[in-house]
Amino acid sequence: MESQNFLNTPSLAWDDRTGELLLLDQTFLPLAEKVLRLNKVEEVHEAISKLRVRGAPAIGIAAAFGLCLAVLGQPFPDKGALVARLKEAGEYLKSARPTAVNLSWAVDILVKKIEDSLFKEVDKLQAYLLQEAVSMRDQDITTCRQIGEHGLSLLRPGMGLLTHCNAGQLATIRYGTALAPIYLGHEKGYQFKVFADETRPLLQGARLTAYELDKAGVDITLICDNMAASIMAKGQIDAVLVGCDRVAANGDTANKIGTLNVAILANYFGIPFYVCAPYSTLDFKCASGGDIPIEERSGKEISDFWYEKPMAPENIKKYNPAFDVTPNQLITAFITEKGVLKPDFTLSLNLGDAYE
Amino acid sequence: MESQNFLNTPSLAWDDRTGELLLLDQTFLPLAEKVLRLNKVEEVHEAISKLRVRGAPAIGIAAAFGLCLAVLGQPFPDKGALVARLKEAGEYLKSARPTAVNLSWAVDILVKKIEDSLFKEVDKLQAYLLQEAVSMRDQDITTCRQIGEHGLSLLRPGMGLLTHCNAGQLATIRYGTALAPIYLGHEKGYQFKVFADETRPLLQGARLTAYELDKAGVDITLICDNMAASIMAKGQIDAVLVGCDRVAANGDTANKIGTLNVAILANYFGIPFYVCAPYSTLDFKCASGGDIPIEERSGKEISDFWYEKPMAPENIKKYNPAFDVTPNQLITAFITEKGVLKPDFTLSLNLGDAYE
Repeated sequence: MESQNFLNTPSLAWDDRTGELLLLDQTFLPLAEKVLRLNKVEEVHEAISKLRVRGAPAIGIAAAFGLCLAVLGQPFPDKGALVARLKEAGEYLKSARPTAVNLSWAVDILVKKIEDSLFKEVDKLQAYLLQEAVSMRDQDITTCRQIGEHGLSLLRPGMGLLTHCNAGQLATIRYGTALAPIYLGHEKGYQFKVFADETRPLLQGARLTAYELDKAGVDITLICDNMAASIMAKGQIDAVLVGCDRVAANGDTANKIGTLNVAILANYFGIPFYVCAPYSTLDFKCASGGDIPIEERSGKEISDFWYEKPMAPENIKKYNPAFDVTPNQLITAFITEKGVLKPDFTLSLNLGDAYE
Repeated sequence: MESQNFLNTPSLAWDDRTGELLLLDQTFLPLAEKVLRLNKVEEVHEAISKLRVRGAPAIGIAAAFGLCLAVLGQPFPDKGALVARLKEAGEYLKSARPTAVNLSWAVDILVKKIEDSLFKEVDKLQAYLLQEAVSMRDQDITTCRQIGEHGLSLLRPGMGLLTHCNAGQLATIRYGTALAPIYLGHEKGYQFKVFADETRPLLQGARLTAYELDKAGVDITLICDNMAASIMAKGQIDAVLVGCDRVAANGDTANKIGTLNVAILANYFGIPFYVCAPYSTLDFKCASGGDIPIEERSGKEISDFWYEKPMAPENIKKYNPAFDVTPNQLITAFITEKGVLKPDFTLSLNLGDAYE
């Protein structure tokens, strides 16, 4: 795997020697660190839909390399045939998960770059595609580092911080989004006291956030989702940091189910609620949260998934939305690579760093 | 077990023929209906502390029969020796769980009745103790039925209702507290749409509430605790009904961890939040919620308890409070056997049915 791994927990890497996508299978964490070698686009689709790789930014980069696997090292009669195959593979990859917009974003950018490229030769187009996927990966690292720096400007040493789900290193290539300010602060000796919601039903907080923060030596305490109000009431939380999967033009934000709960609690207790995200998570085509499609997953994830035996009566109804939408008025600020963006979000999100 | 079982899921019963306490071991639900025969006070203590029987009212009644097991059928030289043994057994039983006040309430009432009794003979005192425990059990059924009737007066057919943890038949002798209005409405064809929070970490909502409501034919949908805001935002919840473990004199209410979360969410969405409790749950010795002791349980309940393999890194910190305190201003009304009590609670709780 890559040598420049931050904290030794990379979500994915491209193996230049073999032309394969290496992927840390997050469904086995924290019990085992299994690395998959993927060399078919179908395997990338499966890995995304089964949450072997998850986190909006990481899904985008995985899809970028998925496009490479679809066309690299294969014969095409001409550019048109290659582009047709790319588009087909892109739509297929986009179908793996509907809510995170970074997946479509990455696919659409790469397909358009190849389509618009001045290269005509198939081999040059293939090389160009790989180069663009790699540079998208590198850009993700830079972006997350910038999110970390902007986020850290809002925090003070010793603060109690709450995060939900996993928006860390494992959800990106390095640093994470919501966890980036925590990692950068940790490097500077800020001694944050971090609390992680376990994040039912799939336990990304318990399995992934607790795992990566503990591995990095951050002071981390695991709680159940329903304990957040209790620790806020005790004054143990100074700020909430979460990532997100899609932001509408007005700032309404889709993120892992339970984020809306935490946002309402933070609002009640007067605690700042920060959404950390790269600009690629913004979807100006969605005017508001009502336009964001919300993935519903099997009810068995609630009753059966982690349990040796089903922990609820068989055949009862279960409702299992994977995401919820937090309305813009509950968000204190967006922390992006372009800076800290405050309300009115319709203005600030559109203007980015020109605003402030 | 008793013949007059409502819905076939009694939490406990006294076997007159053998002088034993029969207890449905709730730790095996919903997978198996195991009934324990307890004939030592130590077994009752173990059953309460291990949550084989749980729910504030049921714990109180279990403790009442626990006192019977401590002294029935045993020789005592005189009343003084019997009372001394009763007091000792009472303190021991009260130590099994610190938060639910009904446990102390039941023990203290029975010990005082025996102590103050005009009977001098040991055998008469023993018979009197059993009679009082049985009547406490019967009173619980009457009380829950009254809570159900008062609660139902606030509800309309077809309403969407959310409940947290289990405050049903299994938490009492019959009907439950928070579920009593649902059962009575169900009998009248109200067709409620009930949602149950699974209630981490011990899953009383998934294992117990979903189990008993499903068995009774109520329309029940299981959600994870962090999905409550999502269904409230969709307009699917018209009222929240919860039980409680201890109410302070000003109305601050200790109940299962996560109740405070739900109360804040209901407040945000303008949904009525009702606490259903018998008067025995009131503790006028606690002026406010800050005076209520909160039980903390092992962090392993979060990471290991239901999982075949630990679902969080070993040795990380976990915080596992069993209860939280909902401040009185988040409570729309208390539904008690004496009626629906509205703010100012300092007044209404003290006056009971004289108020309204």
